[in-house]
Amino acid sequence: MSLVIVGSVAFDTIETPWERKEKIVGGSCTYCALAASYFTRPKIVAVVGEDFPKQTIRLFKKRNIDLEGLKIVPGGKTFFWEGRYGFDPNQRSTIRTELNVFQDFRPEIPPAYKKADILFLANIDPDLQENICRQVEKPKLVAMDTMRLWIESKPAALRRVLKQVDILFANDEEIRMLTEERNLIKAGKKILGQGPTLVIVKKGEHGALVFGESLVFGIMAHPCEDVVDPTGAGDSFAGGFLGYLDRVKRFGKKEIRRAAVYGSVLASFTIEDFGINRFRSLTKREIAGRFLHFKRLVSF
Amino acid sequence: MSLVIVGSVAFDTIETPWERKEKIVGGSCTYCALAASYFTRPKIVAVVGEDFPKQTIRLFKKRNIDLEGLKIVPGGKTFFWEGRYGFDPNQRSTIRTELNVFQDFRPEIPPAYKKADILFLANIDPDLQENICRQVEKPKLVAMDTMRLWIESKPAALRRVLKQVDILFANDEEIRMLTEERNLIKAGKKILGQGPTLVIVKKGEHGALVFGESLVFGIMAHPCEDVVDPTGAGDSFAGGFLGYLDRVKRFGKKEIRRAAVYGSVLASFTIEDFGINRFRSLTKREIAGRFLHFKRLVSF
Repeated sequence: MSLVIVGSVAFDTIETPWERKEKIVGGSCTYCALAASYFTRPKIVAVVGEDFPKQTIRLFKKRNIDLEGLKIVPGGKTFFWEGRYGFDPNQRSTIRTELNVFQDFRPEIPPAYKKADILFLANIDPDLQENICRQVEKPKLVAMDTMRLWIESKPAALRRVLKQVDILFANDEEIRMLTEERNLIKAGKKILGQGPTLVIVKKGEHGALVFGESLVFGIMAHPCEDVVDPTGAGDSFAGGFLGYLDRVKRFGKKEIRRAAVYGSVLASFTIEDFGINRFRSLTKREIAGRFLHFKRLVSF
Repeated sequence: MSLVIVGSVAFDTIETPWERKEKIVGGSCTYCALAASYFTRPKIVAVVGEDFPKQTIRLFKKRNIDLEGLKIVPGGKTFFWEGRYGFDPNQRSTIRTELNVFQDFRPEIPPAYKKADILFLANIDPDLQENICRQVEKPKLVAMDTMRLWIESKPAALRRVLKQVDILFANDEEIRMLTEERNLIKAGKKILGQGPTLVIVKKGEHGALVFGESLVFGIMAHPCEDVVDPTGAGDSFAGGFLGYLDRVKRFGKKEIRRAAVYGSVLASFTIEDFGINRFRSLTKREIAGRFLHFKRLVSF
């Protein structure tokens, strides 16, 4: 099978109550692809400027990520985001965003990507997400993520994309905004009537809830004593989830449950270090170990 | 085995964003004993006034709760609490408290209770909790609950009680206050050095975490679409937890895990109706059904 991920590859400046990191590599597509790379060979569609570090390109290659769809704009500057976290890692605020090469980005799916089995529309402008849907030929599974900005600024486009996807990844705030429903269980079920057949509600340190027509699955977040940087947890979750599904080639209830656990495991590693640092050393063996630890954590 | 519960039996006025109920029966001991009564025959130590409803006494008897330690003060008025919940059921504020018969309450353990195997010090003044500890002869297990009021107003007495108990039940806010540690995993582990060998951190709609020297167990809250009244969820958790342990007569890791699930199950029923209403109809069969549903919810 094959997994295509469309999203941002970016520079982030991150401030937590304890530390500040200037201009480190981030982006929804970056985290998702790195996480998925432990299960499959993800193909990415994204854009960066000439200022994007060679070292990270080498990491992508080392992780066997297919970079045919990564456009490098000569003389261009990479998308930049600055965010700040409070003591509650679930709460963050955007300080600054510079679109740069993303301003005129019209994602083009390379011919070799068109027969993707799984397509992930990571958090980008819903107009772009819709455009991408048109370019891929009958994928078996389409998943999407979004953010507050698009729910508020482009609700109509977002609704149109929602109708075309099988899976929605959303955090608790987003799902409440989308459904105008405070209770997460009701909100999750409500979204099922709007397009997706599966909704994954991410609750940060409190784990995630998975809703399908005849499936409710709850998963803890792996207990973490030191959340160094929460950035990318959601995208790593999606990467672990979809990467696993791409590997096992089945979308049954059992696979969905295990995919959610792998999503949670990958997210739990990401937050242990700033940016994508944890992926420089993370091994498959560590992932397998934490999966088992997880099983012990919740078994009774 | 036998379980003795010391705490409050009270009147509550409850306000949620949707409804207000005046002077309904509540109290930490009430919820805990009702929940425990599905597993064992709890003995309660508490005080009420002459105004306490006969109908509730009949419910206690019907649920086979041992009332020898329930003191009814002639002409006295029952303890009263008024609280208000916001849209987030985890957040509540106390509007009014009237101690009434609780003002001069000096709990006395009846002779038939002194050989209790499990003693639960529900949320009352830590000076009273300490006094009770002295009256019970070598219980196998002592558990306690507390609240923000005592952490702030009687920290020294609270520390002394903490040293004498095996299990602490606390919510996320309380455990953070007790340890001055924001991260719940660190906070839970920190408390283990202060007396208890087991800590149960209750996170409301997000479930609970159980920490022991060589045990970490995480449990979801049962998904609930309509939280009618969150009052008593924590005490019902403790009641289900300790009632189950009293029934199985073993305190191993396996039993602790299952006890936590039963705690969560009982709490999930309590919040489906105002006050103790749900206990009027709740059956063992429903509890068994939800336990199994729970297992399906988290299995992978």
